[in-house]
Amino acid sequence: MNDSTRRLIGVLGGMGPMATIDFMAKVVALTPATCDQAHMPLIVHQVPQIPDRTAAIMGGGDAPLAPMLAGLRRLARAGVELAVIPCNTAHHWHAQLSQLQELPLLHIAEAVRQELILSGAHDKKVALMATRGTHLAGVYSGRLGAAFEPLMTGDEAVQNLVDASIAAVKGGDLAQGTRAALEAADRLFAAGAEVLILGCTELPVALANTAIQDRCIDSTLALARLCVKESMRDDTNVRAA
Amino acid sequence: MNDSTRRLIGVLGGMGPMATIDFMAKVVALTPATCDQAHMPLIVHQVPQIPDRTAAIMGGGDAPLAPMLAGLRRLARAGVELAVIPCNTAHHWHAQLSQLQELPLLHIAEAVRQELILSGAHDKKVALMATRGTHLAGVYSGRLGAAFEPLMTGDEAVQNLVDASIAAVKGGDLAQGTRAALEAADRLFAAGAEVLILGCTELPVALANTAIQDRCIDSTLALARLCVKESMRDDTNVRAA
Repeated sequence: MNDSTRRLIGVLGGMGPMATIDFMAKVVALTPATCDQAHMPLIVHQVPQIPDRTAAIMGGGDAPLAPMLAGLRRLARAGVELAVIPCNTAHHWHAQLSQLQELPLLHIAEAVRQELILSGAHDKKVALMATRGTHLAGVYSGRLGAAFEPLMTGDEAVQNLVDASIAAVKGGDLAQGTRAALEAADRLFAAGAEVLILGCTELPVALANTAIQDRCIDSTLALARLCVKESMRDDTNVRAA
Repeated sequence: MNDSTRRLIGVLGGMGPMATIDFMAKVVALTPATCDQAHMPLIVHQVPQIPDRTAAIMGGGDAPLAPMLAGLRRLARAGVELAVIPCNTAHHWHAQLSQLQELPLLHIAEAVRQELILSGAHDKKVALMATRGTHLAGVYSGRLGAAFEPLMTGDEAVQNLVDASIAAVKGGDLAQGTRAALEAADRLFAAGAEVLILGCTELPVALANTAIQDRCIDSTLALARLCVKESMRDDTNVRAA
């Protein structure tokens, strides 16, 4: 069911499940379409059983690698031409995943880099909100360009709030996820941050419909925009959002 | 990435894209889980290019059949064990799709029948809001049981409002979708309906967060509940919602 103007995109999702659904909704919103048939074909593998990425990175292990590889191969068998993973921490294994299977795999931090430039944030103080795994693995380090690095990160109290927010969203307690993320964001703004990278895909879910959204770079939205752009063979027709 | 207690579910989606996302969110909400790993594995084929189902039924054609069949076969190749289609009108081809490929395919009207019984609606006047295709094809006729049939349907003015609501959701104009669906519902209530079957998966999107939800049977939620139930090999652990 792929058409001639679109590449079939594969989404390795479920990390976590609501973040993947948020990603899909952003793809739909970014696609110029007034009827079903103009929307993007996708194959989404919602595979929440992939072991915790941060726990693996903190422990120096690679438990998520093999199941992520299996998921990408499953998507390839189903016929996708390009893949994305709406989970920042998983990008610790981006290079290995790209080497060990054939599908081209977009990089979420590259998507965020493009979004930072698009938003004109190059003279602002940028902070990264992310899992401990993403910080430790350096998923963003060296990728954003000199204007944005080194990124500001929060202290242990901020990180505890970020961890709590992410866990709450994954566990279905959205109200608690929002409270904790807003408090972490307030502390980062108070410490001098002007722009926050929501560098874990649970954070845009936690902060949906809050007033700070316009001071945030949403990594999920950034990846959705890059995905819509890369899906179109002619690259000309991405709706602004 | 299937585990021993869950069957891998395939979702033939994109009819329309937002309805599929709504279905996935309902599956997540209905699954008892406090972390990613306890959530359901799914493979979702978002394939909006499938030709308009109502247009085919009204014209006496079968244009959607071959691409739906191709989509189900693609899901089978990816390893799913059971399939659902979160589009009511597509169920006109349910028997043929079940005959022409191997995957067991749940039926959305059977899910609604179970939901009607669960909600204790057997002594109430039930009306069906659906596409012209679903009405003409009789997707619900003969499936719900004597207590609920014949279903009340609206007049031409109501159907025009339902059509407008569905088209607006598919086209991204949610506010217009909500207005038209609420007006159609009001007219059905005024004509004596006590319970409305939202028998097109765009309608629960249009009516999300409205006050009439508790007088509606949401076919998307019903299918999600049946799907979570059928995915669990032991059948005991579906969260009430």
